[in-house]
Amino acid sequence: MIYDIIMKKRRGGKLSADEIRFAVNGYTDGTIPDYQMSALLMAMCFVGLDAEETADLTMAMMQTGRTYDLHSELGHICIDKHSTGGVGDKTSLISAPICAACGVYVPKMSGRGLGHTGGTIDKVESIPGFRTDIPHEEFIAAIKGAGLSVISQSGDLVPADKKMYALRDTTATIDSMPLICSSIMSKKLAMGADGIVIDVKTGDGAFMKTTEEASALAYAMKDLADSMNRKCTCVLTDMDRPLGRCVGNSLEVAEAVSVLKGEKVPELYEVSITLAAHMLYLAECGDMDRCRELSEKAVSDGSALRHLEKMVELQHGDVNALHDISLLGTARNTERFTAMESGYISAVPAEQTGLAALSLGAGRKTKEDTIDKTAGIVFRHSVGDYVNRGDTIAELYSSVSADMSQAAARLASCVTFSSEKPHLPPVVIKEC
Amino acid sequence: MIYDIIMKKRRGGKLSADEIRFAVNGYTDGTIPDYQMSALLMAMCFVGLDAEETADLTMAMMQTGRTYDLHSELGHICIDKHSTGGVGDKTSLISAPICAACGVYVPKMSGRGLGHTGGTIDKVESIPGFRTDIPHEEFIAAIKGAGLSVISQSGDLVPADKKMYALRDTTATIDSMPLICSSIMSKKLAMGADGIVIDVKTGDGAFMKTTEEASALAYAMKDLADSMNRKCTCVLTDMDRPLGRCVGNSLEVAEAVSVLKGEKVPELYEVSITLAAHMLYLAECGDMDRCRELSEKAVSDGSALRHLEKMVELQHGDVNALHDISLLGTARNTERFTAMESGYISAVPAEQTGLAALSLGAGRKTKEDTIDKTAGIVFRHSVGDYVNRGDTIAELYSSVSADMSQAAARLASCVTFSSEKPHLPPVVIKEC
Repeated sequence: MIYDIIMKKRRGGKLSADEIRFAVNGYTDGTIPDYQMSALLMAMCFVGLDAEETADLTMAMMQTGRTYDLHSELGHICIDKHSTGGVGDKTSLISAPICAACGVYVPKMSGRGLGHTGGTIDKVESIPGFRTDIPHEEFIAAIKGAGLSVISQSGDLVPADKKMYALRDTTATIDSMPLICSSIMSKKLAMGADGIVIDVKTGDGAFMKTTEEASALAYAMKDLADSMNRKCTCVLTDMDRPLGRCVGNSLEVAEAVSVLKGEKVPELYEVSITLAAHMLYLAECGDMDRCRELSEKAVSDGSALRHLEKMVELQHGDVNALHDISLLGTARNTERFTAMESGYISAVPAEQTGLAALSLGAGRKTKEDTIDKTAGIVFRHSVGDYVNRGDTIAELYSSVSADMSQAAARLASCVTFSSEKPHLPPVVIKEC
Repeated sequence: MIYDIIMKKRRGGKLSADEIRFAVNGYTDGTIPDYQMSALLMAMCFVGLDAEETADLTMAMMQTGRTYDLHSELGHICIDKHSTGGVGDKTSLISAPICAACGVYVPKMSGRGLGHTGGTIDKVESIPGFRTDIPHEEFIAAIKGAGLSVISQSGDLVPADKKMYALRDTTATIDSMPLICSSIMSKKLAMGADGIVIDVKTGDGAFMKTTEEASALAYAMKDLADSMNRKCTCVLTDMDRPLGRCVGNSLEVAEAVSVLKGEKVPELYEVSITLAAHMLYLAECGDMDRCRELSEKAVSDGSALRHLEKMVELQHGDVNALHDISLLGTARNTERFTAMESGYISAVPAEQTGLAALSLGAGRKTKEDTIDKTAGIVFRHSVGDYVNRGDTIAELYSSVSADMSQAAARLASCVTFSSEKPHLPPVVIKEC
């Protein structure tokens, strides 16, 4: 039977919902071996899946595990938020508290970072005592009490995706639009939120390198959500350069808090407010102008920060650490990355920056690696700034690595300068 | 590294000899798992392999096992013969003795049948006492003594092909021209014969359903042999209907012997003589007319039969069984398949005939099945003959199956009749 399914897809055929369910269930329960699934996935990469097959695949994957109906369970409108992954991306820690402050619940089940991009779970775990593995009742209680909760993905959420993603990761079948789409959406749809806002990163440091690819993924995810009667908005944002000034777990928490306290980190603020506004819009808090206004107000009046504090408290974290950065831990070693020449900084490529942070200990090369929460990079200058030769562009931090010359050299090899002020494209590229 | 190779092929790239060798060796020694190899094979099915990659793959596969240099070992010219597999195909038992009688050695390492087509090994094993698992020295002695020897493939001949074929068989990656080509040729080239004649079956009962496909495979195999400086001739022959009158192991041995004794089974005789003539031609026994003449003479003067007898004797078989069919065993049960209407027989589809024989016990559905040597079908009439309703078209034989109605029904459902004498296309379609 699985042989016929592989052959049908190989020959360019369209798989039925039953065939897709048979393959996904069989692979998840172990009756279909890895080698048949990898052949099927490779055939899918070549032939593709149409919108109906993609929806059937997503549904089949979703149903291999526990599904939630958070709207009913919370008795309140709730909006989920997802990012396809970037460098310095701490927007969840800003936009989720904003929504909570505006009366919209944000239940966020999140993954860990791997490779050059970070994960929200790793960031919040840098807050002393903060627990992301709380039982379901505490998750619900945290949302009801703080308006938001960030927890790590439960083991029974879409087991098919865990197994399929690991297989794809070793068989060069990751970059297929319908497979990416079903992997993301099966987990999001399993939560049962009323709406989902997805930050689709595009550029050098993102999975989708071009606006065209990112746009195609965005529309595929929207179509998929549509076919399941879920509201979904995608926001394409720039990931040619890191978002904000800080890269690294505790550093990013501190930066998010500073934004919620009113500090203006222009691009980070812009992306966070835009995402929050779309979340409020899906929750029917008014038109986009009104939702933006509400979002900005939640920052300026401090209410968003208070909701973040409440979540930290309810998830056993040390709230003081949000105000006294030293409680988040201090890196044992520091190093400066200085300008090699005078001029305008014309590029700070995101992927290399992420890899530099990774080498400092801020990320994981493999799933088994542990993270140095204090490690990372703080930029004192960013793209468009004029610097003189020898000026400090960034500070590098690490507790595990005494020799940071490799990370500094990586930055030196990719950061570029120009004699003219570079044109800065908008950080929010498209909203759809 | 294997990830990069899979990705390169997936992206349409050309693999280097080193990359191909890395994949083949790694898969054979178990360091590359099934699921990565199946992904690579599926990518190869979609992207293809060019002539150089196909040659590199064949060479890499061949070198995973023992290779022979039979020419040097025998100190004599030797020609190998292969068939891509058909129903009722016993030509090896005719053309090989013919060549031997003309002074050309034929060292034949052969496979077992699976599915609706038979294997030469299964056929010769229906001769009481005949051993196909003789040690290498006996193989050499049999060739030197009889001019030919048929033995089963040694376990150390191209282990990569065994493993890859089994994987392809479960992952819908069998029908790829370069993969078929390298599978056949790695085993043939490993023998070190001076030349190879390949009977490429085409039509309903063959792996290649159309002349175009069969022709493409033929040229791909010739190119491959060329690139390794080996002489190779391909003969495309019809497999829309079974070859000859008998299908089934001992029945086919008896039919081959009857042809060597001078009985005219027109199409079987034509294919066998054509193949033998090409084998002699590769052995430089003269021009094609001369080689054909030599082949026919080896039948008419009985010398080919004597060489077959000698081989049976040297491989511990009962030579009397070649002359007294009852010694090959007699089926316990018989059944007649009669004409459902009066008219000319217009089609006896080969695949359904093979499946009918399989259901009688003449073949294996899985590798573990045992064969009923006495089982099979003997046609009293074939395509083009006029029959009256109720005439016996074929006799069905089986020792394992008491109820042969299923096999008879299968024949009844596929054999067709017409009021006009059908046009019979030539059985030898192309020689190249």
